[in-house]
Amino acid sequence: MEYNKAISDLAVGDTVEGYYVLRAAQIKTSSSGRPFLAAVLADRSGAIDAKAWDYAGPVGAANEGQIVKLRGTVGEFRGALQLTIDRIRVRGANDVVDLSALVPVAPMDPDAALAAVTRLVASIADDDYRAVCTAMLARHEAAFRSIPAAKTVHHGFIGGLLMHTANMLRTADFLAGLYADTVDRSLLLAGTLLHDFAKESEFTFSSLGLVTDYSVKGELLGHLVMGAQEVAEVAAASGVPEEKSVLLQHMILSHHGDPAFGAAVRPMCAESELLSLIDQIDSRMEIYREALADLPAGKFSQKIFALDKKIYSHE
Amino acid sequence: MEYNKAISDLAVGDTVEGYYVLRAAQIKTSSSGRPFLAAVLADRSGAIDAKAWDYAGPVGAANEGQIVKLRGTVGEFRGALQLTIDRIRVRGANDVVDLSALVPVAPMDPDAALAAVTRLVASIADDDYRAVCTAMLARHEAAFRSIPAAKTVHHGFIGGLLMHTANMLRTADFLAGLYADTVDRSLLLAGTLLHDFAKESEFTFSSLGLVTDYSVKGELLGHLVMGAQEVAEVAAASGVPEEKSVLLQHMILSHHGDPAFGAAVRPMCAESELLSLIDQIDSRMEIYREALADLPAGKFSQKIFALDKKIYSHE
Amino acid sequence: MEYNKAISDLAVGDTVEGYYVLRAAQIKTSSSGRPFLAAVLADRSGAIDAKAWDYAGPVGAANEGQIVKLRGTVGEFRGALQLTIDRIRVRGANDVVDLSALVPVAPMDPDAALAAVTRLVASIADDDYRAVCTAMLARHEAAFRSIPAAKTVHHGFIGGLLMHTANMLRTADFLAGLYADTVDRSLLLAGTLLHDFAKESEFTFSSLGLVTDYSVKGELLGHLVMGAQEVAEVAAASGVPEEKSVLLQHMILSHHGDPAFGAAVRPMCAESELLSLIDQIDSRMEIYREALADLPAGKFSQKIFALDKKIYSHE
Amino acid sequence: MEYNKAISDLAVGDTVEGYYVLRAAQIKTSSSGRPFLAAVLADRSGAIDAKAWDYAGPVGAANEGQIVKLRGTVGEFRGALQLTIDRIRVRGANDVVDLSALVPVAPMDPDAALAAVTRLVASIADDDYRAVCTAMLARHEAAFRSIPAAKTVHHGFIGGLLMHTANMLRTADFLAGLYADTVDRSLLLAGTLLHDFAKESEFTFSSLGLVTDYSVKGELLGHLVMGAQEVAEVAAASGVPEEKSVLLQHMILSHHGDPAFGAAVRPMCAESELLSLIDQIDSRMEIYREALADLPAGKFSQKIFALDKKIYSHE
Amino acid sequence: MEYNKAISDLAVGDTVEGYYVLRAAQIKTSSSGRPFLAAVLADRSGAIDAKAWDYAGPVGAANEGQIVKLRGTVGEFRGALQLTIDRIRVRGANDVVDLSALVPVAPMDPDAALAAVTRLVASIADDDYRAVCTAMLARHEAAFRSIPAAKTVHHGFIGGLLMHTANMLRTADFLAGLYADTVDRSLLLAGTLLHDFAKESEFTFSSLGLVTDYSVKGELLGHLVMGAQEVAEVAAASGVPEEKSVLLQHMILSHHGDPAFGAAVRPMCAESELLSLIDQIDSRMEIYREALADLPAGKFSQKIFALDKKIYSHE
Amino acid sequence: MEYNKAISDLAVGDTVEGYYVLRAAQIKTSSSGRPFLAAVLADRSGAIDAKAWDYAGPVGAANEGQIVKLRGTVGEFRGALQLTIDRIRVRGANDVVDLSALVPVAPMDPDAALAAVTRLVASIADDDYRAVCTAMLARHEAAFRSIPAAKTVHHGFIGGLLMHTANMLRTADFLAGLYADTVDRSLLLAGTLLHDFAKESEFTFSSLGLVTDYSVKGELLGHLVMGAQEVAEVAAASGVPEEKSVLLQHMILSHHGDPAFGAAVRPMCAESELLSLIDQIDSRMEIYREALADLPAGKFSQKIFALDKKIYSHE
Repeated sequence: MEYNKAISDLAVGDTVEGYYVLRAAQIKTSSSGRPFLAAVLADRSGAIDAKAWDYAGPVGAANEGQIVKLRGTVGEFRGALQLTIDRIRVRGANDVVDLSALVPVAPMDPDAALAAVTRLVASIADDDYRAVCTAMLARHEAAFRSIPAAKTVHHGFIGGLLMHTANMLRTADFLAGLYADTVDRSLLLAGTLLHDFAKESEFTFSSLGLVTDYSVKGELLGHLVMGAQEVAEVAAASGVPEEKSVLLQHMILSHHGDPAFGAAVRPMCAESELLSLIDQIDSRMEIYREALADLPAGKFSQKIFALDKKIYSHE
Repeated sequence: MEYNKAISDLAVGDTVEGYYVLRAAQIKTSSSGRPFLAAVLADRSGAIDAKAWDYAGPVGAANEGQIVKLRGTVGEFRGALQLTIDRIRVRGANDVVDLSALVPVAPMDPDAALAAVTRLVASIADDDYRAVCTAMLARHEAAFRSIPAAKTVHHGFIGGLLMHTANMLRTADFLAGLYADTVDRSLLLAGTLLHDFAKESEFTFSSLGLVTDYSVKGELLGHLVMGAQEVAEVAAASGVPEEKSVLLQHMILSHHGDPAFGAAVRPMCAESELLSLIDQIDSRMEIYREALADLPAGKFSQKIFALDKKIYSHE
Repeated sequence: MEYNKAISDLAVGDTVEGYYVLRAAQIKTSSSGRPFLAAVLADRSGAIDAKAWDYAGPVGAANEGQIVKLRGTVGEFRGALQLTIDRIRVRGANDVVDLSALVPVAPMDPDAALAAVTRLVASIADDDYRAVCTAMLARHEAAFRSIPAAKTVHHGFIGGLLMHTANMLRTADFLAGLYADTVDRSLLLAGTLLHDFAKESEFTFSSLGLVTDYSVKGELLGHLVMGAQEVAEVAAASGVPEEKSVLLQHMILSHHGDPAFGAAVRPMCAESELLSLIDQIDSRMEIYREALADLPAGKFSQKIFALDKKIYSHE
Repeated sequence: MEYNKAISDLAVGDTVEGYYVLRAAQIKTSSSGRPFLAAVLADRSGAIDAKAWDYAGPVGAANEGQIVKLRGTVGEFRGALQLTIDRIRVRGANDVVDLSALVPVAPMDPDAALAAVTRLVASIADDDYRAVCTAMLARHEAAFRSIPAAKTVHHGFIGGLLMHTANMLRTADFLAGLYADTVDRSLLLAGTLLHDFAKESEFTFSSLGLVTDYSVKGELLGHLVMGAQEVAEVAAASGVPEEKSVLLQHMILSHHGDPAFGAAVRPMCAESELLSLIDQIDSRMEIYREALADLPAGKFSQKIFALDKKIYSHE
Repeated sequence: MEYNKAISDLAVGDTVEGYYVLRAAQIKTSSSGRPFLAAVLADRSGAIDAKAWDYAGPVGAANEGQIVKLRGTVGEFRGALQLTIDRIRVRGANDVVDLSALVPVAPMDPDAALAAVTRLVASIADDDYRAVCTAMLARHEAAFRSIPAAKTVHHGFIGGLLMHTANMLRTADFLAGLYADTVDRSLLLAGTLLHDFAKESEFTFSSLGLVTDYSVKGELLGHLVMGAQEVAEVAAASGVPEEKSVLLQHMILSHHGDPAFGAAVRPMCAESELLSLIDQIDSRMEIYREALADLPAGKFSQKIFALDKKIYSHE
Repeated sequence: MEYNKAISDLAVGDTVEGYYVLRAAQIKTSSSGRPFLAAVLADRSGAIDAKAWDYAGPVGAANEGQIVKLRGTVGEFRGALQLTIDRIRVRGANDVVDLSALVPVAPMDPDAALAAVTRLVASIADDDYRAVCTAMLARHEAAFRSIPAAKTVHHGFIGGLLMHTANMLRTADFLAGLYADTVDRSLLLAGTLLHDFAKESEFTFSSLGLVTDYSVKGELLGHLVMGAQEVAEVAAASGVPEEKSVLLQHMILSHHGDPAFGAAVRPMCAESELLSLIDQIDSRMEIYREALADLPAGKFSQKIFALDKKIYSHE
């Protein structure tokens, strides 16, 4: 028996033991009047229906989203695999679990990425912009290390926002050099760092850290307006001159490029124009990366919703 | 000689004396090497070119936008009227001037309008929404009495914002009654009052109070975001619960209805949906009122830019 | 046993007796060769599958859409409730049935609403417009009292058109007062009354009065063109001057505001501009009213097709 | 001296005598206090400014749009040609004038074109459709022979509507044969004949027969709705079954193809789909014909407003 | 027993013998461990599930898309017809099969159609254009006789491209006569012939000749660019002057009319404008022909994807 | 006297001697019957009207666009500066002229830029892609060193295409490193080098090397299709496998990103997606660079046509 076997590798007859995510759980009553647990178990590789017969608890609906330890056997029901659970309990405080096997995690070292971000922030020449960045990083560091950048479109995994921001900062740094006579490097890097911080309050998250939905505030205001508002407060508290605060807010408010894509205002300076293009580059390259991972060479994908088109995997 | 004769009534040969706006002014040198003042004078009814020969000051470019007192004679140059100025000076501190003859003014009594607004605000049942409204009215009262709501599109005259808001509040009050089971009257009236306050900082104004242009902040952030930000601050300072603050901000951010028309987010509750329609009604009725004023019955107007169409004046 | 129990309240084991709508019905043959009735029964609260075993008629496909009286028992089949019918017959001429329990009905008193409409029509000052309104009301009164304003989008219930028109007339009356110097009250009220009368021939209706589909004429011409055509005839028959007839037709042809939303021409006078906005207000407020009825406070709805967005139910 | 010399051929020093259109005329007073006539004269080839010195009438503003006989000499003023008039009078009842030299006329024989149209109408197999066509032709024959199909876009000349309709009928006849199993030839030809008849009341015309503007009715209702309305009346008067009348109205209401291009409804049957394409073909080929007439081979035109692009004249 | 009975006519109890297309095939194992063939059989009229019990080959997945001969009996499984196969083999080299019963075929005589195309090509007056057409016809003749013009939208059957092109050439010939002073008949006919030849390499085809998908090249370049490229080569090889080659390429590149519909450039000469309209006519008439075939008179269709609307079948 | 004084620095009374571009020239006749030259002279800084009195040649219309040497005096006519020419002749073969003072030139060292491009091409790992790049560079080197990338929008100066391509290659090189697991560096760099080569034949150029207009071929085919066609030829001649040739063509055909912006197909692989974004970045940064050059800090520009918005110059 393989411990913690990936769900996508399970086959009829397998005995299973290990930690999985309890995505859904309900205590039901069978036609013979007996209680049973109807559950969906998941790991990073997929999901499987599961039943614990003659089971009335304690694991149940209240534990949805938590990690459970279980033992069971794989069978088949109406043409699909089904796991019959023998034993199940909620993960204890001392259980050591490899989270990266259970939820998708960014393919990078978060410490290194955060260090790189911090170094780039420290390299911002303008004292005011650097002060706002430092203060914002301090306020958001914990979430910034771990939250996804989206539910599913791109970077929808643990560490997604950090990976997205770190990539964008590297590109911003490069382009600030290439277009040094047109672009203020300090403003560009500051805007890039700050542009998505408010995703922390735009979304709600599962206990495992994935995005579950938009928050009420997120739907009614949007992360652009929320982000600009926090930066305005932090800039005021740091004694930053108003024009600089307004420029930082403008960077955030316009980073979706066009009102049709959610921008509250259109980019009107070289740095905000560039930020919206850098954001597009990193978003789209990540969509390609994720889609190409499952696509054989020489084939077209299905239509990808976020791109509104198919893509091609060349040799 | 008619004192303060309206510019649109001037004819060749008239002697002119009175107060006018110095819309443009420049000291130039004639082909014979003599200095002269080339000016444009304006009142509410129109504008006229003017020259003061052999004149080197003190009135000049620095006085543009101010009110001057002058005396002169109307002649003709290349088919257009031209005023030859005999005497000109800037309006003194003691000169009594009828401002409404010089700049366009809302066709209403501002005291009565403000009183009506105040009464409606006082009638807001929800203590939190009323507190925010009262605080915002207190902060903005002076400007709210006098500023236009736009440069030219509609309500582009002294008192325009007050007239626009007062009309909208009356309609909001009526519709809150008609749709009482769907709409929260307190939220609708509060959002209506607050929706355009930030126009005070979105625009720059001439010394006579008309809109001259957008401010830097106005262009880069827009009055929706600025307005939501101030309301967030005021609500926090007043101890208003966050959900109510978010709803007020949402009302302001969405009152243009659609991102294509400048909304930062789309309306998502009955009150914000209604606010954007009430705003459309009052804006368009004012555009019609202004356009129909100059249009004979039975005729179509020229294409009106803000409506992207011609309109018809029926009998 | 609860008589006429609402379908949404039924549970396994209930005995049922009462009047329901026979939404679908077919006589089939079981695998054992016996005839049975497979039906769907509905009331205002929902629908349920039903079977009458060993039953060959007389109730069958020919009675679809009619009201039946039945007695039966609620069971379960493949996870869904199913009603086993013991007795069933078509509603007789003397059966007293509470229609409002079976089909959705406007939440208003139709007599009061019609009286309010009639009073407002009587208040139209212009003799010509009032004459057309009076003649049209007389031609359409029966249908106007009862037909829905749509199949599903909004006001899709008995009395929907009357409720929609009555609400709009109240708003038109209010706005005609607020914008009295720009708007001709007589024209606005007349256009409001007349704008949707042709829905009577644009749709086909079930025997219970609900919209089943578009008529051929409704699809090929649309209720705007049909409505304008009838008003042209009635106006001509009443000796109304042509300009007034043309203005009334224009009100009807343009009341969808924009060709993209079905307007045959764009509104070109203040009254038609206003009519299209009043129509939007009442349509959207009704969509909100219906959607909010099922939405708990603090939640967002699913995406609503007619609005192309989710809506929020605040506290 | 060349009698009735084309205006585009005039040169400084020419003596002119003949008939021209008095496009504009005004009696003015010179700086020396003498009356003179300031006029614009036009023929099919162009226009020229003209002056009659020391002239107070009788020809004046009241004669704008009429044909005058005059004698004069061509000079130059501020770099442009100017005609000094010696004698001028309004065309008398007995004066024989070649209208085709003064206003643009369709390049076809109107009698032959009308005969061809009449033959195709006579060939319509369906008695009902043919009856409506015959009745409509009889009602409109005089205008149909002569009015333009537009002000400027295409066919903006005397006989334009007849030329446009005759061409379209020929194409409709051909395509009805090619797609005989999909298309009802009678319906297609009838719709084609009728589609633009209402242009007669959509426009106002100068005394020489050219389109001067839209009529009030034309702006407020449009020729599609007006045309459908008249066909409905004529069909009813002829006892045509309602479905056929509705189909004819649908052909007219949908012939602009898409609401964005002015269609009141979208084409929903093969014949209306085809009619809208046949209309596009003839409109665009005429736009090309007119634009290519002035364009040397190997050159691109200026951007053509009605096509929103430049076109190319190949060898 | 009816030999080769159409699948849409099969009923429970029928014995079946004949040739059908093996659309899908898989050797599976039953719950009792026995091998069986699970297949889908198709002919022009429809498809049916089929099983061959205790069957391990030789017919299997490798034969998908081929024609098989079989014998079996029609039964029922879970409410749907199912064919139990007694004998099955792949069609042999000597089996005579009526292909038109198995796959959809254009309703025309391909020899006659090709002859008509050839005659029209021979009638092209311009030697250069005719030379390119003749060369291209020779290169593509085999495929041109048989390939469909699309997967499903229109002309998605054997011979579809030939039927589409032949119809369009007839219309081009007619319109070249009607607009002889504006249109170069040689260019119009040549562009019409050539416009879709590259569909041969834009698609991949099943062994029976139907379109299965886009080719890699077809997705990445499109048939417009591929077609223009081949014509450029052929024209160069034939010594055609460059302007003519460019015009032919322009015809092909612009024949979708608008970039939104896939045109690489917009039509800029009368012939390319006309070609795009002729293409629309034939495409849409074929969509109507196919949709009307299944639509009873007096009914509307479901929404047709390619037209984005319903269509109506009149009497 | 300052030799070759910049036109923007000229003032009344200046004596002028030096080389200028003869932008326009015409021999005219004065009112006194004497011939004179009416010309417009230009250098990089601006343009000025000029007259040579009593002058009949040899310099005239035939020399437009050439460089002339002249001597004259600056006066004033109707409020504008005017140069009275004393002597004028066409630049001789031995005259040494500083071209960069007369026409706009890219702010870079063309040798260094070309060397950088060549180095990056040499670094392409894939032999096939590198071969095509090398061959194309060899074919186009002379033009590639000097032609502008556009008439006016961006990079509309000598060396513009080289500057644009060199910048884009640097960014492509950087992003190929950042997204190394998603992007094929060889394909990205090759597509970037090749994407605009066909601008050489899309435009026509003045004798001084600036873009004057589109060529016929450029208008009818566009530089995307022309570029793909040449690359297809070169790839075939170099024995490059078809898939690689197709990918290169796809890069060129899709580099405008969206059909609405001129793309013949939409980008469907990571490299073409990235190329279109890199192109946007460099185009827009250059538009900002040019616009900001003339814009004081703290000011907004006029609306910039290519961006459809104003831009802001911050401190």
